[in-house]
Amino acid sequence: MVSNKFFALVAGIGPGTGRSVALKFSEFYPVVLLARHPESYSDVVAQINKAGGRAIGISADATDEASLASAFETINKEFEGLQLVAAIYNVRPNSRPSRKPFLELNLEDLDVSLNGNVRGLFTFAQRTVPLLLKSVDSSPHPPTLIVTGATASIRGSKLWSVIAAGKSAGRILTQSLAREFGPAGVHVAHAIIDGGIDVPDAAHAANNDVTPDGKISPFAIAESYWNLHTQHKSAFTQEIDVRPFNEHF
Amino acid sequence: MVSNKFFALVAGIGPGTGRSVALKFSEFYPVVLLARHPESYSDVVAQINKAGGRAIGISADATDEASLASAFETINKEFEGLQLVAAIYNVRPNSRPSRKPFLELNLEDLDVSLNGNVRGLFTFAQRTVPLLLKSVDSSPHPPTLIVTGATASIRGSKLWSVIAAGKSAGRILTQSLAREFGPAGVHVAHAIIDGGIDVPDAAHAANNDVTPDGKISPFAIAESYWNLHTQHKSAFTQEIDVRPFNEHF
Amino acid sequence: MVSNKFFALVAGIGPGTGRSVALKFSEFYPVVLLARHPESYSDVVAQINKAGGRAIGISADATDEASLASAFETINKEFEGLQLVAAIYNVRPNSRPSRKPFLELNLEDLDVSLNGNVRGLFTFAQRTVPLLLKSVDSSPHPPTLIVTGATASIRGSKLWSVIAAGKSAGRILTQSLAREFGPAGVHVAHAIIDGGIDVPDAAHAANNDVTPDGKISPFAIAESYWNLHTQHKSAFTQEIDVRPFNEHF
Amino acid sequence: MVSNKFFALVAGIGPGTGRSVALKFSEFYPVVLLARHPESYSDVVAQINKAGGRAIGISADATDEASLASAFETINKEFEGLQLVAAIYNVRPNSRPSRKPFLELNLEDLDVSLNGNVRGLFTFAQRTVPLLLKSVDSSPHPPTLIVTGATASIRGSKLWSVIAAGKSAGRILTQSLAREFGPAGVHVAHAIIDGGIDVPDAAHAANNDVTPDGKISPFAIAESYWNLHTQHKSAFTQEIDVRPFNEHF
Repeated sequence: MVSNKFFALVAGIGPGTGRSVALKFSEFYPVVLLARHPESYSDVVAQINKAGGRAIGISADATDEASLASAFETINKEFEGLQLVAAIYNVRPNSRPSRKPFLELNLEDLDVSLNGNVRGLFTFAQRTVPLLLKSVDSSPHPPTLIVTGATASIRGSKLWSVIAAGKSAGRILTQSLAREFGPAGVHVAHAIIDGGIDVPDAAHAANNDVTPDGKISPFAIAESYWNLHTQHKSAFTQEIDVRPFNEHF
Repeated sequence: MVSNKFFALVAGIGPGTGRSVALKFSEFYPVVLLARHPESYSDVVAQINKAGGRAIGISADATDEASLASAFETINKEFEGLQLVAAIYNVRPNSRPSRKPFLELNLEDLDVSLNGNVRGLFTFAQRTVPLLLKSVDSSPHPPTLIVTGATASIRGSKLWSVIAAGKSAGRILTQSLAREFGPAGVHVAHAIIDGGIDVPDAAHAANNDVTPDGKISPFAIAESYWNLHTQHKSAFTQEIDVRPFNEHF
Repeated sequence: MVSNKFFALVAGIGPGTGRSVALKFSEFYPVVLLARHPESYSDVVAQINKAGGRAIGISADATDEASLASAFETINKEFEGLQLVAAIYNVRPNSRPSRKPFLELNLEDLDVSLNGNVRGLFTFAQRTVPLLLKSVDSSPHPPTLIVTGATASIRGSKLWSVIAAGKSAGRILTQSLAREFGPAGVHVAHAIIDGGIDVPDAAHAANNDVTPDGKISPFAIAESYWNLHTQHKSAFTQEIDVRPFNEHF
Repeated sequence: MVSNKFFALVAGIGPGTGRSVALKFSEFYPVVLLARHPESYSDVVAQINKAGGRAIGISADATDEASLASAFETINKEFEGLQLVAAIYNVRPNSRPSRKPFLELNLEDLDVSLNGNVRGLFTFAQRTVPLLLKSVDSSPHPPTLIVTGATASIRGSKLWSVIAAGKSAGRILTQSLAREFGPAGVHVAHAIIDGGIDVPDAAHAANNDVTPDGKISPFAIAESYWNLHTQHKSAFTQEIDVRPFNEHF
């Protein structure tokens, strides 16, 4: 039974985590899917609405203040009266930041990573945290901001310099928000996704048990995100790691 | 509907985490509760059995090889044919290890901590991991070993020297087991419980929403442990932290 | 006896660490002091030259590619033929990034931190690492890049969100460089300065024993930086922490 | 010029770190070398005394209270009136703890690690910290306790379970001591030695530049320990890592 009072927002929809998280949260809440291009979300939006859920997709750049502001105008119109209780930041940088020798990189490579991983998160949090704060008293679960991280969030590996710089900054920013807004009742959590994510095709999209060994099922990530969201306020987890059983770490 | 093929084992039952975890897992599996004294578990065992679950309590010192071996004889008799799919190590040291100035401590204070936090875990894992390995193919969820840690597991604070020594050793031992047995399909996880745990009295035992601010609901910890147990094998979390929303950290 | 073959470069000269590091390294090498304004370095440059050392100060923004390029034109002219063997990145953001509630910050506050702590370091490293690589065979000690960090480099405290985001990104970028350029013989190290730094006045500038309790002597930091620089290539330290004996941590 | 007021104590003398540290500190202080067997220290003791230093070797088990007490009786007689200003705990477990599959280990393997890495350190610290505290006002450098760690101190790798358990406990115990005794003026530091240590033969014992690539020169470790000891009290480093330039990490 989908709520008619609360909604969830997922920024960053790709073939993996974003759409699975949207699907999971759509079992309970109307969901907004933000992505730069309609082709990233249109089929999931249709799938959710067809399954009896309620979803809208909005083409927006979640890292851009104006684009995000415009997206919220649409949200306010479409989901009038609904309160935000879960915001997931799953945005990837605009273009793939370069994993290459440091001396072959340039400042733009760094900026791509900083934009997607830090500046975008900052903008997204500035927009969503006030809404989450407003929902503290009425939300069925503590309002939640979840940020998707990676191994690079805690480790500067060789050749990963610009990616790790952006990811680690996003992680620490999230940690700081957790310390500031936890006491106000908002649950801020970070997930270190350590491994490649399976991109299920039609054949096994409904059954994450067929995830090939060594890949993470995005459905399983979505379960973990949902579990974070539903944690009691007396027992918030600030950070989880997630990896395939056979990942070397 | 409680399983008639699998069981869970909780070592270390006190008024907080242990009993709540046993209650939670008893919704799905028959459970064994291990504690040194019957008064630690007898009422929970009765509560579970009365509620339609299946539980046995065994007086044993989980840190002692012989005592643990004897406990497993009882288990094998009482739960004949059932397979172990979840083992939780929640043992506190035999006596409260001293939190006091280092120069006022003696070697026995250290040994109390090492015994409960490391040697006991070692013994428990040696006994349970082979059983968990046997259940990999049949278990409804990846067989799981969960170890209860604390802030002292990652931080040697002033005056906490012997507690932190034991706790950190237990954490790293758990991490090593995760790396060794994850690839074989056993999920080994560690929980850093950061804060005081509420000990619910009759008045609010059934409703963790009344946990006083600043205390962790043991029921909420139990939910998190269950969520760890039910993670898909493509997405194991090795470590979580758990703290009240208003805990300073 | 100051070298006539090698030189050191310190970017970011203030009343604390930068000038002390320049003074220390000037005992062995000619030094270049980079700061935005001459008043930051002119007295130290004079002091070094008067004491028999060799120093030049250059007004430059070390975080700006063009400004840094122009500084190196000056360096190449003034220190013609000398090889760079130590580069210290001690730059503070252009204006003090705001330590305040997250919702009172704006994107410019974040950008100030990212510029000084990450983009500037990136630019500085792109310029200096190739020079350090060239010095590997001739340098008396492994050529060294040292980056000044802070507690915020490893911890996102409440109200420190933008500072911690920048500092943590700078730290992980440094770590990545250490992994990439260590095997080529360049020592890349990061220093977590945990505490307030004393700004010695004339009265005790020559005697760091009078540093008031609770403050870090910048001369002591300089000693630690020199010790990092002179480590044998078989025993590189990637990260140190530095704090007053009575700092709570 | 060797001090006639202060002395240093090195527990754990083998062919690598221990003897190099003793040699380094003997340039400034009389040194006591503790090892289980005279063959571990007799040649170094002779070498130091021949070189104009002052050294005694004592056969003792530094992890055993009675043995350590007896050693201190000898020290008090031989070094009467001298004050302890540096204590280095470099003890390896009594026998090599097993690096093997967890299920092939037994409790004795764990105890070997706990004894050498934690219980021994506890005993050593209980004996030496009071002496270091007494030297705070007179020591030329802040009295120092340094503990030798390893990669296993911060990481539970596969197959390293018992070693990592002991090492991590020793590290956190050291951290706790640093927090307790730093404010009293005693510098407590931990060194994570990440890599194999070269055992120099006669051919290159005097020249650490010939350390083969991939090995750590014990002389370089000794330099780092000395640098820790001589840090100003306003700038204590609690932990360093040390690894060969070309170590993968």
